[in-house]
Amino acid sequence: MSFSARLDAATAAVLARAMEGGPSQLARALHYAVTPGGARIRPTILLSVASACGDDRPHLSDAAAVALELIHCASLVHDDLPCFDDADTRRGKATVHKAFSQPLAVLTGDSLIVLAFDILAAAAQDGSHSDVQRALSMVRVLAARTGMPMGICAGQGWESESSINLSAYHRAKTGALFIAATQMGAIAAGQEPDQWEELGARIGEAFQVADDLRDALYDADALGKPAGQDAIHARPNAVAELGVQGAVSRLQDILGGAISSIPRCQGEATLAQMVRRYAEKMTPALPQLNAAAR
Amino acid sequence: MSFSARLDAATAAVLARAMEGGPSQLARALHYAVTPGGARIRPTILLSVASACGDDRPHLSDAAAVALELIHCASLVHDDLPCFDDADTRRGKATVHKAFSQPLAVLTGDSLIVLAFDILAAAAQDGSHSDVQRALSMVRVLAARTGMPMGICAGQGWESESSINLSAYHRAKTGALFIAATQMGAIAAGQEPDQWEELGARIGEAFQVADDLRDALYDADALGKPAGQDAIHARPNAVAELGVQGAVSRLQDILGGAISSIPRCQGEATLAQMVRRYAEKMTPALPQLNAAAR
Repeated sequence: MSFSARLDAATAAVLARAMEGGPSQLARALHYAVTPGGARIRPTILLSVASACGDDRPHLSDAAAVALELIHCASLVHDDLPCFDDADTRRGKATVHKAFSQPLAVLTGDSLIVLAFDILAAAAQDGSHSDVQRALSMVRVLAARTGMPMGICAGQGWESESSINLSAYHRAKTGALFIAATQMGAIAAGQEPDQWEELGARIGEAFQVADDLRDALYDADALGKPAGQDAIHARPNAVAELGVQGAVSRLQDILGGAISSIPRCQGEATLAQMVRRYAEKMTPALPQLNAAAR
Repeated sequence: MSFSARLDAATAAVLARAMEGGPSQLARALHYAVTPGGARIRPTILLSVASACGDDRPHLSDAAAVALELIHCASLVHDDLPCFDDADTRRGKATVHKAFSQPLAVLTGDSLIVLAFDILAAAAQDGSHSDVQRALSMVRVLAARTGMPMGICAGQGWESESSINLSAYHRAKTGALFIAATQMGAIAAGQEPDQWEELGARIGEAFQVADDLRDALYDADALGKPAGQDAIHARPNAVAELGVQGAVSRLQDILGGAISSIPRCQGEATLAQMVRRYAEKMTPALPQLNAAAR
């Protein structure tokens, strides 16, 4: 089964269980926030790493992939709230608080966070000692990269500081869930997570720079969400710091570093290819960016 | 060590770890939301049940108690937000969004939810197979009683429905975390959770009726939070349904049922005594209530 078919099937099963018998509006809001998905980059990276490591427990890697995507969706729903980005659109449709209400958007984010941890525990509950340990270890990695002091919540929290620790900010805000992706993929397949941190961190950096470029140069129609938000909210941004051309070179350097950081494993070559594919996905923008930089 | 000393020590250790190196405002908001605690009824019930079951892994029951209290604190922070209760005060001090900001209040709730699951996993990560299984089982119970379709998020979600399932609403909104308290206490001490559900559910019902009475009859100073909120928000309420005297009789019936539902265990008598103590804590209100009912 393709990664995308695995993700669809696992996501549908999880959502059905979370919605059954609950209040119908909140149930619909959960479904709305998660489907149809965006690019699902993080869970795809997770499954790619699990695959490269042998993927001997596909039900654990599927659970990890869905859990990670739910955390990402929860963060989007909360980030779109009026007290943060006050965004009207996301993935080309109304944001959750616009389509439902602010209370339901807060509860949707909360419920998705809870569900993410439940999925990890559910996947291993009646499993072997190794399964149960992997699940617990994935709970710890996902929590570390979601909450305080160094997860995506911390990343958002840095925006409320008068003096910002830029490297902690970037690593937490965007890098964290990419690190969770590579580390959880490795753990799901029985590998130690430590050596997988750098690959996640570098993919996260590349993604942040690409996102900064898109935010600065594209309009809302192309993005499916409001454009120019970094400038409006005076957020740190690679384009402001390095200029367009500098940001493009930076992106290419980081991706090269990502590929050379891949640990030895049976699927090393395929994984390097995946990173190159992501690099290409980010590059359709480059000719335009080069033109804009002139 | 007393339950309260165990809770203080475990909470302080968890908060210190969550705050270290993170953005300082969000770190302060986490601390502010959790300390000084309220009555800590839920974690005390949890430790009482664990004790009654032998408490052979006190580090697991401590972790469970703190995790449960953090989820409760998270729910208070989010419930106080302007889009829900719009409350200015809580536990006699400014609510988190008033003392800090709305973004920090959303992030505080999110971070506390994540931290709760992390604590459970951290307590068992290098433990025996039994420890790891207990931790995973507690993750599942805590998730079920926090998220969708039947946790406290679902309880809040019912308030957005045009037609409400009253029994699902009450059980989810207030009962859920009391059920988590009795079940997690049992699991931490190696017992099956199923037979402990009824005790939690009944304590939760009693607590809801007592809270309805206090909300209807006390002023904001006595409550440490805004009064009359149920009437203002037209929420279902035992006083509106049964009158003051009817609600008082109801409370006493429920507590009797709670005591007789206690499963056979070595600390059965002590546990019954604890429920009676809670009943007394709820009853100082009764003479006044009887007067008010006349």
